[in-house]
Amino acid sequence: MPKKPLWSPTTAWPTGLRNDKPRNQGVTMVFDKGIGLVAFHDLLEMAGDYIDFIKLGFGSSALYRPEILEQKVDLARRYGVEVYVGGTLGEIAYWQQDYDEFLRGLHGYGIGWVEISDGTIDLSLRERRQLIRRALNEGFRVITEVGKKDPTQNLALSQLIQQVLDDLSLGASYVIIEGRESGKDVSLFDSKGGVKEDDLEIVAGALASTDVLIWEAPMKEQQQILIQRFGPNVNLGNIPVTEVIALESLRRGLRSDTLRPA
Amino acid sequence: MPKKPLWSPTTAWPTGLRNDKPRNQGVTMVFDKGIGLVAFHDLLEMAGDYIDFIKLGFGSSALYRPEILEQKVDLARRYGVEVYVGGTLGEIAYWQQDYDEFLRGLHGYGIGWVEISDGTIDLSLRERRQLIRRALNEGFRVITEVGKKDPTQNLALSQLIQQVLDDLSLGASYVIIEGRESGKDVSLFDSKGGVKEDDLEIVAGALASTDVLIWEAPMKEQQQILIQRFGPNVNLGNIPVTEVIALESLRRGLRSDTLRPA
Amino acid sequence: MPKKPLWSPTTAWPTGLRNDKPRNQGVTMVFDKGIGLVAFHDLLEMAGDYIDFIKLGFGSSALYRPEILEQKVDLARRYGVEVYVGGTLGEIAYWQQDYDEFLRGLHGYGIGWVEISDGTIDLSLRERRQLIRRALNEGFRVITEVGKKDPTQNLALSQLIQQVLDDLSLGASYVIIEGRESGKDVSLFDSKGGVKEDDLEIVAGALASTDVLIWEAPMKEQQQILIQRFGPNVNLGNIPVTEVIALESLRRGLRSDTLRPA
Repeated sequence: MPKKPLWSPTTAWPTGLRNDKPRNQGVTMVFDKGIGLVAFHDLLEMAGDYIDFIKLGFGSSALYRPEILEQKVDLARRYGVEVYVGGTLGEIAYWQQDYDEFLRGLHGYGIGWVEISDGTIDLSLRERRQLIRRALNEGFRVITEVGKKDPTQNLALSQLIQQVLDDLSLGASYVIIEGRESGKDVSLFDSKGGVKEDDLEIVAGALASTDVLIWEAPMKEQQQILIQRFGPNVNLGNIPVTEVIALESLRRGLRSDTLRPA
Repeated sequence: MPKKPLWSPTTAWPTGLRNDKPRNQGVTMVFDKGIGLVAFHDLLEMAGDYIDFIKLGFGSSALYRPEILEQKVDLARRYGVEVYVGGTLGEIAYWQQDYDEFLRGLHGYGIGWVEISDGTIDLSLRERRQLIRRALNEGFRVITEVGKKDPTQNLALSQLIQQVLDDLSLGASYVIIEGRESGKDVSLFDSKGGVKEDDLEIVAGALASTDVLIWEAPMKEQQQILIQRFGPNVNLGNIPVTEVIALESLRRGLRSDTLRPA
Repeated sequence: MPKKPLWSPTTAWPTGLRNDKPRNQGVTMVFDKGIGLVAFHDLLEMAGDYIDFIKLGFGSSALYRPEILEQKVDLARRYGVEVYVGGTLGEIAYWQQDYDEFLRGLHGYGIGWVEISDGTIDLSLRERRQLIRRALNEGFRVITEVGKKDPTQNLALSQLIQQVLDDLSLGASYVIIEGRESGKDVSLFDSKGGVKEDDLEIVAGALASTDVLIWEAPMKEQQQILIQRFGPNVNLGNIPVTEVIALESLRRGLRSDTLRPA
């Protein structure tokens, strides 16, 4: 039986050094819109080394039978992967004045990370800060998300940047730049999914470091541009379950789009 | 072990009341273009509560090894889901003057529903009526489909409506509005998959109730518009196997697109 | 238990005779961008009769844990399917002056076919010939690929044809016409994936037979045009794992797009 991979580069991957897990920089967050438990396990067995977070998209986790949700959380942890739930479910619970129950639900399932967002509902700055502080006080690690899901409500860049800085100052571990499942007509992406590179530079230029950002980038061209701009260890999110190995290939220059022979 | 879902709304889902299975209104018909048996089982285990029908797309069922087809039919039934085969296979059998054998095949596999369509071949009104009556006489429940798959042959709306009424009067349980796998350039969808909302209103206005229609709507934007227009219990078809939980989230307002906080 | 398929045509498939495996003409090459082992097995069990090759896309095979790669190769062979690795990995190894090690890796895993390409790196004619001869000398069967992945580097048709003829004269078993995973803006496909039919005719007209070509055609419309032009036994590649049964339905006229009733 072969004991080593098919082939490894003599010196480095074409794109340079790639961080291994556990890592803070270079995380991949996968978007699960409801795959079955067998498929979930199969994904982890195949690609667990290349996944840091799995987000159960939007409010889908409310539709899970308890035993399936429980098994997803536990299975993922065995592969060093954290499962958490899409910000939309928290927004609904907050809007229905039932946020206590929502946080109790997360605790009950052993989910240690919470995403705080206002992609659909409106939160005042005071409310947003309260939610972040409260989650931290209750022992969660916090990921926030900035950006509106409705393209007609797009945030001004200055507002987006201010919110990133504010969230981080309160103790968020990462801030996600909204990209939705589609990657189109949202935040830094135009209606075809193209990256608004000027806007990208403004956001990047305003922050001391982009290591705390997770860019939701479901489309290959978006991933490619972000990897070429920020390197193989850029944090990327909303990766379709079918694209994890393809993304890792992009990160390492194992695919034409990021492979640049001298 | 947690015994209850992660979170449930205090009063109702954001979109209102959603019918549970078994149900006649609010059915979801999933489009299977040939997933394996393990994936099929995994889908049912994850999302069986949210599926009413699984259609084996176009003529693909003729390519199945017998033991796999048999197991799909039986497995689905254990989850309260009916498997049936795409109308195209019946059209081919009819065109080859072998429809008896086709119906015997369905009986042999214990498939209780039959779809009658003329999306590709031409059927006279008399032939269409004969096929419906015959299937009913042989104990099948009948779903018909209206609409042509070739965009150059698109039916006039008046003709489409007339056919719906005629099929129902003969005893069809549901009438499907053709949407193909792609959802583009067919029936009420334009070449980008956009819904022709004026045409939709004409069809809806001509019927006493739309509860007997199944709208084939493979794309999220189509599902969203139909849910917003007809409510969470609109019948939807040709849902990709990967989108069942996502659709159920849309139906219940667990996703930004149908979540409308006051 | 039913012993025969649901339905078979009385005389022939609507498109005519379809070759069974093992076959040289009419091969289907599937593009695996990193599905798990369970999904891989499930695919073979469902559709192994309709698959000849599975390509592990681009350089992804370098990311596999040894036991998973080994099991994919072995499992596939039990179903009469050959696994091989995307040309890009060989290009990287060659560029890093480590091609010996790459070929040893293939041997170590019992992979019997090698793809030789210069879709990303540049190879002189002499280098390309050397690589083909060397692989043949070491006992591999050779598939070459012609075409550049970068649309700004598109080959002239005359150059592409010359390369096909040259590769075949050296002993390549098949020559692939590059189509990438996307099928867009590459070789004979325009930026929307449309087939440049004039170019197609020029290529077809320049060869004594197209039986030695494998057309990468990930999109349904491309498959449809190629099947209509060359018949059900055209060699097609880069078929998504989800589309194998759908493609076989197209090949046999079990889908509206290639079903042409008299």
